[in-house]
Amino acid sequence: MAMRAAVAGASGYAGGELLRLLLAHPRIEIGALTGHSNAGQRLGALQPHLAPLAERTLEPTTAEVLAGHEVVFLALPHGQSAAVAEQLGEEVLVVDLGADFRLADAAAWEAFYGSPHAGTWPYGLPELPGARAALEGSKRISVPGCYPTAVSLALFPAYAAGLAEPEAVVVAASGTSGAGKSLKPHLLGAEVMGSMSPYGVGGGHRHTPEMAQNLSAAAGEPVTVSFTPTLAPMPRGILATSSAKARPGTTADELRAAYAKAYADEPFVHLLPEGQWPATGAVYGSNTVQVQVALDPAAGRIIVVSAIDNLTKGTAGGAVQSMNIALGWPEETGLPKNGVAP
Amino acid sequence: MAMRAAVAGASGYAGGELLRLLLAHPRIEIGALTGHSNAGQRLGALQPHLAPLAERTLEPTTAEVLAGHEVVFLALPHGQSAAVAEQLGEEVLVVDLGADFRLADAAAWEAFYGSPHAGTWPYGLPELPGARAALEGSKRISVPGCYPTAVSLALFPAYAAGLAEPEAVVVAASGTSGAGKSLKPHLLGAEVMGSMSPYGVGGGHRHTPEMAQNLSAAAGEPVTVSFTPTLAPMPRGILATSSAKARPGTTADELRAAYAKAYADEPFVHLLPEGQWPATGAVYGSNTVQVQVALDPAAGRIIVVSAIDNLTKGTAGGAVQSMNIALGWPEETGLPKNGVAP
Amino acid sequence: MAMRAAVAGASGYAGGELLRLLLAHPRIEIGALTGHSNAGQRLGALQPHLAPLAERTLEPTTAEVLAGHEVVFLALPHGQSAAVAEQLGEEVLVVDLGADFRLADAAAWEAFYGSPHAGTWPYGLPELPGARAALEGSKRISVPGCYPTAVSLALFPAYAAGLAEPEAVVVAASGTSGAGKSLKPHLLGAEVMGSMSPYGVGGGHRHTPEMAQNLSAAAGEPVTVSFTPTLAPMPRGILATSSAKARPGTTADELRAAYAKAYADEPFVHLLPEGQWPATGAVYGSNTVQVQVALDPAAGRIIVVSAIDNLTKGTAGGAVQSMNIALGWPEETGLPKNGVAP
Amino acid sequence: MAMRAAVAGASGYAGGELLRLLLAHPRIEIGALTGHSNAGQRLGALQPHLAPLAERTLEPTTAEVLAGHEVVFLALPHGQSAAVAEQLGEEVLVVDLGADFRLADAAAWEAFYGSPHAGTWPYGLPELPGARAALEGSKRISVPGCYPTAVSLALFPAYAAGLAEPEAVVVAASGTSGAGKSLKPHLLGAEVMGSMSPYGVGGGHRHTPEMAQNLSAAAGEPVTVSFTPTLAPMPRGILATSSAKARPGTTADELRAAYAKAYADEPFVHLLPEGQWPATGAVYGSNTVQVQVALDPAAGRIIVVSAIDNLTKGTAGGAVQSMNIALGWPEETGLPKNGVAP
Repeated sequence: MAMRAAVAGASGYAGGELLRLLLAHPRIEIGALTGHSNAGQRLGALQPHLAPLAERTLEPTTAEVLAGHEVVFLALPHGQSAAVAEQLGEEVLVVDLGADFRLADAAAWEAFYGSPHAGTWPYGLPELPGARAALEGSKRISVPGCYPTAVSLALFPAYAAGLAEPEAVVVAASGTSGAGKSLKPHLLGAEVMGSMSPYGVGGGHRHTPEMAQNLSAAAGEPVTVSFTPTLAPMPRGILATSSAKARPGTTADELRAAYAKAYADEPFVHLLPEGQWPATGAVYGSNTVQVQVALDPAAGRIIVVSAIDNLTKGTAGGAVQSMNIALGWPEETGLPKNGVAP
Repeated sequence: MAMRAAVAGASGYAGGELLRLLLAHPRIEIGALTGHSNAGQRLGALQPHLAPLAERTLEPTTAEVLAGHEVVFLALPHGQSAAVAEQLGEEVLVVDLGADFRLADAAAWEAFYGSPHAGTWPYGLPELPGARAALEGSKRISVPGCYPTAVSLALFPAYAAGLAEPEAVVVAASGTSGAGKSLKPHLLGAEVMGSMSPYGVGGGHRHTPEMAQNLSAAAGEPVTVSFTPTLAPMPRGILATSSAKARPGTTADELRAAYAKAYADEPFVHLLPEGQWPATGAVYGSNTVQVQVALDPAAGRIIVVSAIDNLTKGTAGGAVQSMNIALGWPEETGLPKNGVAP
Repeated sequence: MAMRAAVAGASGYAGGELLRLLLAHPRIEIGALTGHSNAGQRLGALQPHLAPLAERTLEPTTAEVLAGHEVVFLALPHGQSAAVAEQLGEEVLVVDLGADFRLADAAAWEAFYGSPHAGTWPYGLPELPGARAALEGSKRISVPGCYPTAVSLALFPAYAAGLAEPEAVVVAASGTSGAGKSLKPHLLGAEVMGSMSPYGVGGGHRHTPEMAQNLSAAAGEPVTVSFTPTLAPMPRGILATSSAKARPGTTADELRAAYAKAYADEPFVHLLPEGQWPATGAVYGSNTVQVQVALDPAAGRIIVVSAIDNLTKGTAGGAVQSMNIALGWPEETGLPKNGVAP
Repeated sequence: MAMRAAVAGASGYAGGELLRLLLAHPRIEIGALTGHSNAGQRLGALQPHLAPLAERTLEPTTAEVLAGHEVVFLALPHGQSAAVAEQLGEEVLVVDLGADFRLADAAAWEAFYGSPHAGTWPYGLPELPGARAALEGSKRISVPGCYPTAVSLALFPAYAAGLAEPEAVVVAASGTSGAGKSLKPHLLGAEVMGSMSPYGVGGGHRHTPEMAQNLSAAAGEPVTVSFTPTLAPMPRGILATSSAKARPGTTADELRAAYAKAYADEPFVHLLPEGQWPATGAVYGSNTVQVQVALDPAAGRIIVVSAIDNLTKGTAGGAVQSMNIALGWPEETGLPKNGVAP
């Protein structure tokens, strides 16, 4: 029997992708769709790719509108989820696609987000050690950031196996949907096409402490992350190049074995055969993560490249995967493993 | 109960898209996958986006390999389908994604394709008048070309309603996957990105007689088509701008009514509300066709713009839709109506 | 000896391209740069590609600031040029990149632009019959629209030679810089990349009467234009496919001869050899127009495809070319004929 | 008075860009253009953007054809330049755009290129310490690789100032023209658009030892480089993110001062003001390098981002700049500092 799900923030890119996935989910019936400045508009005007929902109208994001659903997805600006969740009742499964409940360290939260710390909810990256157990039966889920998804899955096996030094260096390229549907000059098509540029250089990106939190947990010691995000001329996708010095004596075989073991039974992680490298195009619209690992003998570094769709596995797909676990459904329900390519 | 389907030509773009759709089809089990020069290779190396099929190996395209399937899809170079189909037995549903059985006019076939005419099979564009009846129960299906799909759906309602003069002018832009996975200099990424260019100008494109055939049937009189295809810097999608002089006295209301009537019950045609125009991005990876129509009073012309995904509705999705009809399954089975956007 | 040129509207795409060209112009010294909401900002923050001007500051668009220059370029929203020009004195060469002085027909102006008609200035498309004579020595120049540049150069030779019926059908694709640096959702990179869409369908685009004006002048009779513009996923470039019925008896040789004659001595029109077709990538950043023509015998139509860079030949390059003529300088001075490709 | 220059390898991307720049060079007259498999073809068919050279014909690459020029540019596959150069005479300025004379370490050459070591020529990256002196009056120039150009300019000031530890980590994204005009499936437009992917991961890229050579020279001690190149969906441009641990006690002010000093008088290096970051779009078609530097206090790393056009400053522009120095001409002659943007 299907459950009814509401989506708060249905006019943005995360909300749109969530609806695309929920429309294909056999156990979800789509209920209320809400927006803020767009309340009252036809969804067809805002999300023209969602043909089956074109005639639906956005409602305002209020407790009344969201009441009466068994699942509520929150795709809201950060700082707003706690207040909404409180009004929804403990029996409702609340899945927060925002940042509010991701960081355990209140000081890091406040330094990077500048608002009061709201605590943490079970973390929706099931592939991490212990994550599934925390998600099962939970009524609250905090979906990871898109970059932390790509980077944590790239590096945690090396840290969990004790093969990497605790200083990670990450450079990642993201499609521009990662910046949201925001009207800023540098996001205009004419600026973006044919150009790559970095942002938040020098440790300023808000996803940095989230990566450090995940990798430190895997390593059992504090891991620092030097993170440089870049904007790439594509709508979707993250390609993350993550590296760390190899612990002395680490061999390529050991390294590969650690990844093979970590991902042996993961339905959504595709550890590629040797010689094949990830491409974001291959996971376009898919919940799959492509991962490949190498040891650079001259530089003494472990290099891991991972590719995800920032809106699917990086946001909405990760949310649905975690919802499936929380509700006791098969984890793969309703989630595409194929990319849309070429 | 599922039927087993084989795909001949599984390494190309059409074959890859077909496999993506068949993986999501609840009544199809994927059987043999064949190739020509790629036989013996892992599918994962050729179609890295099809993670669940990564370990499958391509077999040669022979009658032995294709035997024992209830459905066989042929995604072969033109001129090869007849010979393969003959060997498959009349009880097998053969769906030809190539051009071999599309044209009734043997002279047109030979002029445009330069090989002997093979005849026609029921035409896999169910939205055309009479097409569904011909497809139901058929064991042979000829899938239309991608441009004819976009253009026939754009103009047949105007011709069927007697509103348009029999001289159509079409300019269409296609993503470069429409040219196939062929190693030609002008298809290199560096050449294609940031550039638009036409090809087959002046009536030379092979899809021209197929459009004329469909529109003439709708009009009940010969319709000529001036067709200019262009290559656009995107992987997928066709945006077709099709126009014809309006018959004297045609009103905008009449025109809109003709389209509303033609598409009232079509599951995959999205006639947009007035003021909204098609975008190929909105049907990316989807079997939906977006259509909008206008009357230009100053020029006296009917202008119809249609958007499809050339690989989905324009090729593999149209094939699956027609297969569903032929097998008596619900027409929408396994087919996405949502685009993957942004 | 160099002349001093001011640019009003230096923060937009037209203004930026103009500055790029003027920096390479041996007889121009760049004077005041003005903006509206951006006055007071560093040019380097607004036009980061103009390294040599990075430390210049935008001033407000006033008569005082613009005074003391021998040439003033106006890249302003329509309706504003007349007032500015009046204050500049008759001895100053004023080059208007906006629409204000393009249309002779006051009724058409008012219908399409909704503001009072300002009259006409000599028209900056030197390749049109009589245009150079009007530009020589003129102190006022009205630069054509980008689409009218591409379409007029595509079709006027056929009309001037009496080979085409007076009903033109045009479909053109433009890079998104054609829409200006305006913060609209449909112009965001994530929306634009991988997607094509039309706008202003059915005769509503403001460039339509300008095309009709130019082609009617060439034909010596009224020519109607059915014009459909589309937005293509590229920063720059217009590919226009323009067609008209051929007058009875027109031959391909006659047609080609008409174009060869029209463009025999044109420095910026590259009539391609038979078999080669225009590509916007080949004229990226260049003042060259690529043109090719075909006769479709089955449809009885003349098809002309032209490619320009909308910001160069379509706006700023056309402006500089016309300025050169007006000032008696060699027409090619400072203008690139090469595209930046691939 | 102009000198005559020949270009061997005129049909490729490097050759095409070189011709674009030479056409704008006031002291160069373009002489023989040669090709290998393309000899005998019109240049207009191979490089359609070079309108002024469209009617030129490619000749075979022989000593006879190249004789009689004062400058000869070699854009040949690696391993071929030495033999050609020997036949040209010592009075001819030979500029090699290939790799043959870049590496001093014969073992590194043989390990990465697999052919006999040819020695070194003066290195065409004038911004490096001592490079100009070696170039002045030289009759042989070895133009750097595109990645080493971007990375050496990013990191040498930090190493020269003793601020960085000798282990550099570099991730760079390149437009697909960097891979040349080679017919490989992964370079097809449909594969490249909307996708990012790495290659040569783990230390295998041939440009790695060249970077190490340059940075080691600046540091006065051996520097290792962990280099990961990625392919980005754009025709041109390299965005390099280069980092190294800061020496203990390094301050942000010290760091910035080192870069300000290194680039105070460099005509083609644009050290951006604080807060502004490089974008490849801003240097499209330009010989300018954009550089910005940051200190990440939490990770203790120096992060430098640099943007170049791989074909201009990264290949052909660097070649022309070095030629200007070798011939005693003003270094900036004929070289654009502006990008073509948007």
